[in-house]
Amino acid sequence: MNRSQLISIIREKKSVLCVGLDSDIEKIPAHLRAEEDPVFSFNKAIIDATREFCVAYKINTAFYEALGVKGWKAMEQTVRYIGNDHFKIADAKRGDIGNTSSQYAKAFFETMPFDAITVAPYMGEDSIKPFLEYKDKWAIVLGLTSNAGSKDFELQKMVNNKEDFEDEVHVISQHTNYLYEMVLQKAAGWGTPGNLMFVVGATQADEFINIRKLTPGHFYLVPGVGAQGGSLKEISEKAMISDCGLLVNASRAIIFASGEKDFAEAAKKVAKEYQQEMQSFLIEEGSEF
Amino acid sequence: MNRSQLISIIREKKSVLCVGLDSDIEKIPAHLRAEEDPVFSFNKAIIDATREFCVAYKINTAFYEALGVKGWKAMEQTVRYIGNDHFKIADAKRGDIGNTSSQYAKAFFETMPFDAITVAPYMGEDSIKPFLEYKDKWAIVLGLTSNAGSKDFELQKMVNNKEDFEDEVHVISQHTNYLYEMVLQKAAGWGTPGNLMFVVGATQADEFINIRKLTPGHFYLVPGVGAQGGSLKEISEKAMISDCGLLVNASRAIIFASGEKDFAEAAKKVAKEYQQEMQSFLIEEGSEF
Repeated sequence: MNRSQLISIIREKKSVLCVGLDSDIEKIPAHLRAEEDPVFSFNKAIIDATREFCVAYKINTAFYEALGVKGWKAMEQTVRYIGNDHFKIADAKRGDIGNTSSQYAKAFFETMPFDAITVAPYMGEDSIKPFLEYKDKWAIVLGLTSNAGSKDFELQKMVNNKEDFEDEVHVISQHTNYLYEMVLQKAAGWGTPGNLMFVVGATQADEFINIRKLTPGHFYLVPGVGAQGGSLKEISEKAMISDCGLLVNASRAIIFASGEKDFAEAAKKVAKEYQQEMQSFLIEEGSEF
Repeated sequence: MNRSQLISIIREKKSVLCVGLDSDIEKIPAHLRAEEDPVFSFNKAIIDATREFCVAYKINTAFYEALGVKGWKAMEQTVRYIGNDHFKIADAKRGDIGNTSSQYAKAFFETMPFDAITVAPYMGEDSIKPFLEYKDKWAIVLGLTSNAGSKDFELQKMVNNKEDFEDEVHVISQHTNYLYEMVLQKAAGWGTPGNLMFVVGATQADEFINIRKLTPGHFYLVPGVGAQGGSLKEISEKAMISDCGLLVNASRAIIFASGEKDFAEAAKKVAKEYQQEMQSFLIEEGSEF
């Protein structure tokens, strides 16, 4: 799916909702566990219930890998079941030397029909480039994540270049920035706003204006709304651009809205609430919507 | 497998060889492709041929994922076939928020019987901790990798703390270091030399003495010998400690030593050459061996 198709879906649905299929087998309703493939049955019901209100689905690969071959099979079935009317994200946090990243790209873009994959930037350009070589496919690079560990490296200060040392102290101060800012700036140069997005956690609202300044045209995949506590209003105000530039993920808040037989109905209700809140911000913030 | 068991195997075999099962289906001998599971058949033959000379096997998950469900099945069969006399590494470069990393740990340490998994440090402590909660299992954290992209972030200079700004210029210079050094120092504090190792590329020989100074007791998983050009002699001289502290990986140089019917024999020959070279360094450098 390319950028203009994604924007069309957002306009049509008046939604930036991404439903995260973190389908933990320990948490899905008990009555489904007797089914041949409980995770796929659960996902199918959730997808049918939420299709109307979301523009994207995000499959968190960890929950499928934990189940081994059966889990991988459920993932493949799920991504195919979603179809082509939604943007399909593999939340896989992959990234390795070039020839290995090429194999991951093959896994998620050829063997499975995902539109996008989340990738970790630590190993640099050649670990991300293979994901950018596919037409209408996307790499979503970790920028500033929603978790406490973002303080350990992402929010550590960098010295931008050697010359800084020889300059005045106040110049050094101006020339330093966070690791995540260096990641945004460098990675933005490896792709385009048409094949590269960033993960920016909803809990990092203080940094959103700065992030938008650094990457004015890029889409952000924003996890951390709901269970992790981020505010949709604040994100929309700070980071929405004229052609939107946001996908907001909610996982547990939707898919585990109820742990009983009414789980799909409950998921539908919460997804609809998200969509309606999003619609109000899209109308307020995005003049084209 | 715990640290003393690993060291025992190294002593017994007089080898630090890790055979990398980057079993690309496009590169395995043509006559195997008619088999029901060509990748597992290939791995089986390679494992039987090299068992005697190596202490570890490393499965590069990307090559298996590229084949979908079949590939994941071949991976599960392979790790079980290796057995308990070798250290089994999932080269998976995983890492995500805590509850997701827990699922990856489950996938590789419970669903499959790996001893260790490679993990990416970008997201910080809570993304790595779940892998350290298993007895006799290991997290192998990316430190300084062998690829060109290591220059993009790993070898970028950090400012260690806010106070640096207010100090003299020469103090600032002393207080800066590379991102990868900060990763080594922080991650070393999250685990112990008994459950945490680092990936250090063989092509980064200039940094090896410094790396050993920062993490004197840790094991390193060293890829990049062979196809990527790193020198075994230099690594041994610079990074070997009294109880060894090294696992040196070779993948393509061994498993694709021949693309014909003699592939297993050819792999055995190259693995033996590695072992013999390693033995000479273990005797020279490691007084206890």
